[in-house]
Amino acid sequence: MQVAIAAFPRMTALDAIGPYEVLQRVPFLDLVFVGERRGEVRTENGFLGLTVDATFEEVPQPDVVVVPGGAGTRAFLDGGPVVDWARATYPGTRFTTSVCTGSLVLAAAGLLDGLTATTHWSVPDLLAKLGAEPVTQRVVEHLDRRLITAAGVSSGIDMAIRFVELLADETAAKSAQVMIEYDPQPPFDAGHPSRVSAEVMARVAEYAQTRA
Amino acid sequence: MQVAIAAFPRMTALDAIGPYEVLQRVPFLDLVFVGERRGEVRTENGFLGLTVDATFEEVPQPDVVVVPGGAGTRAFLDGGPVVDWARATYPGTRFTTSVCTGSLVLAAAGLLDGLTATTHWSVPDLLAKLGAEPVTQRVVEHLDRRLITAAGVSSGIDMAIRFVELLADETAAKSAQVMIEYDPQPPFDAGHPSRVSAEVMARVAEYAQTRA
Repeated sequence: MQVAIAAFPRMTALDAIGPYEVLQRVPFLDLVFVGERRGEVRTENGFLGLTVDATFEEVPQPDVVVVPGGAGTRAFLDGGPVVDWARATYPGTRFTTSVCTGSLVLAAAGLLDGLTATTHWSVPDLLAKLGAEPVTQRVVEHLDRRLITAAGVSSGIDMAIRFVELLADETAAKSAQVMIEYDPQPPFDAGHPSRVSAEVMARVAEYAQTRA
Repeated sequence: MQVAIAAFPRMTALDAIGPYEVLQRVPFLDLVFVGERRGEVRTENGFLGLTVDATFEEVPQPDVVVVPGGAGTRAFLDGGPVVDWARATYPGTRFTTSVCTGSLVLAAAGLLDGLTATTHWSVPDLLAKLGAEPVTQRVVEHLDRRLITAAGVSSGIDMAIRFVELLADETAAKSAQVMIEYDPQPPFDAGHPSRVSAEVMARVAEYAQTRA
């Protein structure tokens, strides 16, 4: 079974690598990073290069599609290779999924019209503008449509574990979870804007302006 | 402040990308992926290429060192460029850290002699053989020695958030956490071998044999 993870300039690395690390543990899944051109793409800040191993044209019928997010998504919401590929591959996939602002890409492709979906907490309005109905939920599944969206950045790990259960069974999902020792112990209860102070959100704004 | 993340063939991607994604949010940190040679390294299964932007020689005095793990670590526990670099940079770092089997590298460099340390749950014996005292803990800090080790794969996210607190303050740490929406909701309570069934561990063994 082929899992194709989209890669593009100014993507968020963990959006892609979270699901990658879970799914690559499962022997019947083959993973490939797909992009507009073979070769390196750089994350938002340029600090990290990831390799695209196949072009979108070379992977026309993947079984599973994972679309990560990142600042780079804003460049092609009016249409572009990632959006076109998500739309074109969707009818043949077992699941088409997104992490973080990757749901903006699925929405831009018309796949989320009128459906509930999740995204990074900072962009529900943009998701709504693209035709979806944003909800505050870590993972939103529409199994009848074979569509799954996950919330911001780290949520792709939760999604991917659930996803292994859907593709195989609960034992496989738990195996992947224990292999990556996903026994989270965040040092703070600060995973969502609803649970942090105004001071923290001011710092978020400051940091995001300096580096986003 | 320069954060240098080691990269080498057959590394585990999430070991590195977890901390990367947290730390890159903080504007006063500059991150660089460092390796034996500039250019691409491939993860364990070959599915993912990451770019090394600087050689170990080019980054002799980083402020922070992060050593990820992976099957690739086994190739140089008797000595090798990553081990030599970890040992050589240690006296000048503000913190030297590891994720997963990256602690084997720090131990091989002699940095963990007689100290408690953590690693992936599958290799405490190997860590002990290299002179450290393995403990079952997600993050082990020796702040007086400027050494921090984190447990398997996903634990680097927890470590890095705490780490931002040490490098800056609690507000910065919470900012990074909320930006990556680290509000984990694992679908199962299966993050550690102590909490999964024998059936799951049998599957882990099967998967690890097929793909490790």
